[in-house]
Amino acid sequence: MAHVSIIGTGNMGQAIGDVVRAGGSTVQALGSADSGTPVSGEVVVLAVPYPALAEIVAERGPQLAGKVVVDITNPLDFSTFDSLVVPADGSATAELAAALPGSRVVKAFNTTFAATLAAGTVGGQQPTTVLVAGDDAAAKELLAGIVTAGGLRAVDAGPLRRARELEAVGFLQLTLAAAEKVGWTAGFAVVA
Amino acid sequence: MAHVSIIGTGNMGQAIGDVVRAGGSTVQALGSADSGTPVSGEVVVLAVPYPALAEIVAERGPQLAGKVVVDITNPLDFSTFDSLVVPADGSATAELAAALPGSRVVKAFNTTFAATLAAGTVGGQQPTTVLVAGDDAAAKELLAGIVTAGGLRAVDAGPLRRARELEAVGFLQLTLAAAEKVGWTAGFAVVA
Repeated sequence: MAHVSIIGTGNMGQAIGDVVRAGGSTVQALGSADSGTPVSGEVVVLAVPYPALAEIVAERGPQLAGKVVVDITNPLDFSTFDSLVVPADGSATAELAAALPGSRVVKAFNTTFAATLAAGTVGGQQPTTVLVAGDDAAAKELLAGIVTAGGLRAVDAGPLRRARELEAVGFLQLTLAAAEKVGWTAGFAVVA
Repeated sequence: MAHVSIIGTGNMGQAIGDVVRAGGSTVQALGSADSGTPVSGEVVVLAVPYPALAEIVAERGPQLAGKVVVDITNPLDFSTFDSLVVPADGSATAELAAALPGSRVVKAFNTTFAATLAAGTVGGQQPTTVLVAGDDAAAKELLAGIVTAGGLRAVDAGPLRRARELEAVGFLQLTLAAAEKVGWTAGFAVVA
């Protein structure tokens, strides 16, 4: 059991909150009107679009020290759907970790569409797997425990450097969905 | 029906050859002893490790003009399993296309382990999907037709620029298999 703050009340924030609650952990849901409310969770999920990360760092950086901070973003150029807006050799997560040196930053949930978190399956066929990357093993284990308690699978995808590849997977999956090659309830499944 | 030359007789070359034949197309299989034999296929699959591409370009560049050339490589640094050896903003396929300006270069088969091509399924559960990226629509359609005739699924993954993301998927999948998070008969499935 853990206490998880989720910043962002869009479809991803809601779906992640439901997973957390299903596993018996508690949720502090923070919307845009709650910028004055400090985070209370030991785990803080930033369920916001990539451009909002800088503002959260500016507003809440000191609050996030010592916490497990979960970056779920796919930093696409949504005007073109043809590139990422982070440096080619980096990732949104690497940027976030550099901006929050006192936090334990992990990447997760960027390769799972909201509907697959809610359904627990990819396309009704495969169990939904949350890929988790980061350099702090205990942080990854804590998040994986929350996810698996909530009925999903979690797989350690390696060090923080792998966030780059996770963002590439998320990018590709978004382009496939936008092109109607996969559904928004489906996408990449991780088959063991 | 097409005639396909496959350079490389390792497990990937063999598995791709079996798919091609299963669809009624014919195969010219060329091993390392056949460097003096010209390619005869309208489609040429380079089923070799990334470091061998430069040699093939040097030896066979003029023969490949006008042909559909299929790059299947995952340009990993296999000594570390922690990075790719191509520029961060590029891909092995982009390098190959630049070296073969007279060829129609596509990326394919780098996200499907050999065993999934042979079995036709990812982990015995999902149909194996070959993701194909390239800038020549007719070349992608020709390859997709060969693949689907052979009993697999094929999905257009977009322009040649998406080879970068396909190589990231291949890289991540290889690291997950090496870490025993997924089996070599499984991995990423594309669920529509």
